[in-house]
Amino acid sequence: MEADYSFSEDVKIYDTDAQGIVHYSGYYRFFTDAMQEFIKWKGHSFPIIDQNKWMVVLESNAKYIKSARLGDTLKTSLNVSLVSKKILRFDFDITCKDETICKGYILHICIDKNVWKSAEMPQDFIDSLIKKV
Amino acid sequence: MEADYSFSEDVKIYDTDAQGIVHYSGYYRFFTDAMQEFIKWKGHSFPIIDQNKWMVVLESNAKYIKSARLGDTLKTSLNVSLVSKKILRFDFDITCKDETICKGYILHICIDKNVWKSAEMPQDFIDSLIKKV
Amino acid sequence: MEADYSFSEDVKIYDTDAQGIVHYSGYYRFFTDAMQEFIKWKGHSFPIIDQNKWMVVLESNAKYIKSARLGDTLKTSLNVSLVSKKILRFDFDITCKDETICKGYILHICIDKNVWKSAEMPQDFIDSLIKKV
Amino acid sequence: MEADYSFSEDVKIYDTDAQGIVHYSGYYRFFTDAMQEFIKWKGHSFPIIDQNKWMVVLESNAKYIKSARLGDTLKTSLNVSLVSKKILRFDFDITCKDETICKGYILHICIDKNVWKSAEMPQDFIDSLIKKV
Repeated sequence: MEADYSFSEDVKIYDTDAQGIVHYSGYYRFFTDAMQEFIKWKGHSFPIIDQNKWMVVLESNAKYIKSARLGDTLKTSLNVSLVSKKILRFDFDITCKDETICKGYILHICIDKNVWKSAEMPQDFIDSLIKKV
Repeated sequence: MEADYSFSEDVKIYDTDAQGIVHYSGYYRFFTDAMQEFIKWKGHSFPIIDQNKWMVVLESNAKYIKSARLGDTLKTSLNVSLVSKKILRFDFDITCKDETICKGYILHICIDKNVWKSAEMPQDFIDSLIKKV
Repeated sequence: MEADYSFSEDVKIYDTDAQGIVHYSGYYRFFTDAMQEFIKWKGHSFPIIDQNKWMVVLESNAKYIKSARLGDTLKTSLNVSLVSKKILRFDFDITCKDETICKGYILHICIDKNVWKSAEMPQDFIDSLIKKV
Repeated sequence: MEADYSFSEDVKIYDTDAQGIVHYSGYYRFFTDAMQEFIKWKGHSFPIIDQNKWMVVLESNAKYIKSARLGDTLKTSLNVSLVSKKILRFDFDITCKDETICKGYILHICIDKNVWKSAEMPQDFIDSLIKKV
């Protein structure tokens, strides 16, 4: 499947740990960078969409296939899908030299931050993310 | 189910983000702290067990139920189970004021770090973690 | 000089980097932990003191003398001093096995967060931190 | 003074804290990114130069002038200077919308990592960093 977006960056020294590889939670930094850059490219802010609507995380998951090391260039590809008008799912695939090294997903729910209750995402936000057929 | 171990600590300012709550990847810090303190209490080092055997992460998962904020005292309870002689699973339950706010799990595989191939965990390491009936 | 407070914790795997030692910015985590625990002990919140008064950082500095490694128990001692009614200085000394491995300081200024301008710290906050002679 | 290099990136959600601004230690991430990208551009690895020579941090300092927020584009400019054949100094200036918001410096010393003693930097590494007149 073709990705909706991909973002490349190098592994930094602070991403690594004493095992000489990227620390497992460091991959969530790559996921986050790809989401934020993708949504900026779509013309919106993330995860704070506007003064009222915020996206907060419901679930995060990553499967680690191969290790990445200092200086490796990683390409994080993502696909976005609408679970409901309130819930957004991102699927990730991180490659290093064209080989998948990590796969994962993040589920976000939209909230009205003034009452901290779930709410529908703004329609123009949804429209910008989801391709029409 | 009774937890094998629990570790309490306060949410620090660097755990939070501009939404005023703990950033989703911050919960992996609490998971990691609980694992490392648990295994220290069992008399071993983690995730670098010894000069040859290292535990590396295969999968991480967290489900977020309620938000935690600056200064909240969180209690991370864990249960450990043996998937095989090479693979260890930790299940986590984080509570704030006796209410579960996050649940998750981490799968580790043991490697021989000299050849970077999977290997059995040291027997005394296994014995220290798993309760006999 | 006797420290006003000290806080001990172990180096976690995420504090280390591919050089096998604590990453230089990781020591600011130990500084932050010691400040937050100290001020909690004094009966206040930090760095968000209350709904109006926040402490924000003006300057940070650390000198690295010896490296710390995974599992090392570090003791962070701090001394607090009043630069003015608006500015607080913390001096830090981190020891590992009774040897100083890192020294540093952090300067905070108090702001009224509603107007984001410098302001005097609450008097009871000052009184709690500074020893009377 | 003209900068030797500059690197731009957006403030990510994990760089911010509950005060809604970049956490003070987050600026060291921007310093580190600029250093690593600069030295990659010069054809070398950093801070692990090669199998024997590593750069480790002696001192870090940052002065905070104005706050940065989620989504702000920051430009980190750096100048490098040779304190000795063993010690390298980086000076940083971070701007947001052409205004300086943070200034700082980092001192690194070269070590022979096999004996963990100070050592001269490789000559081709020095030559690549320092402009000839």
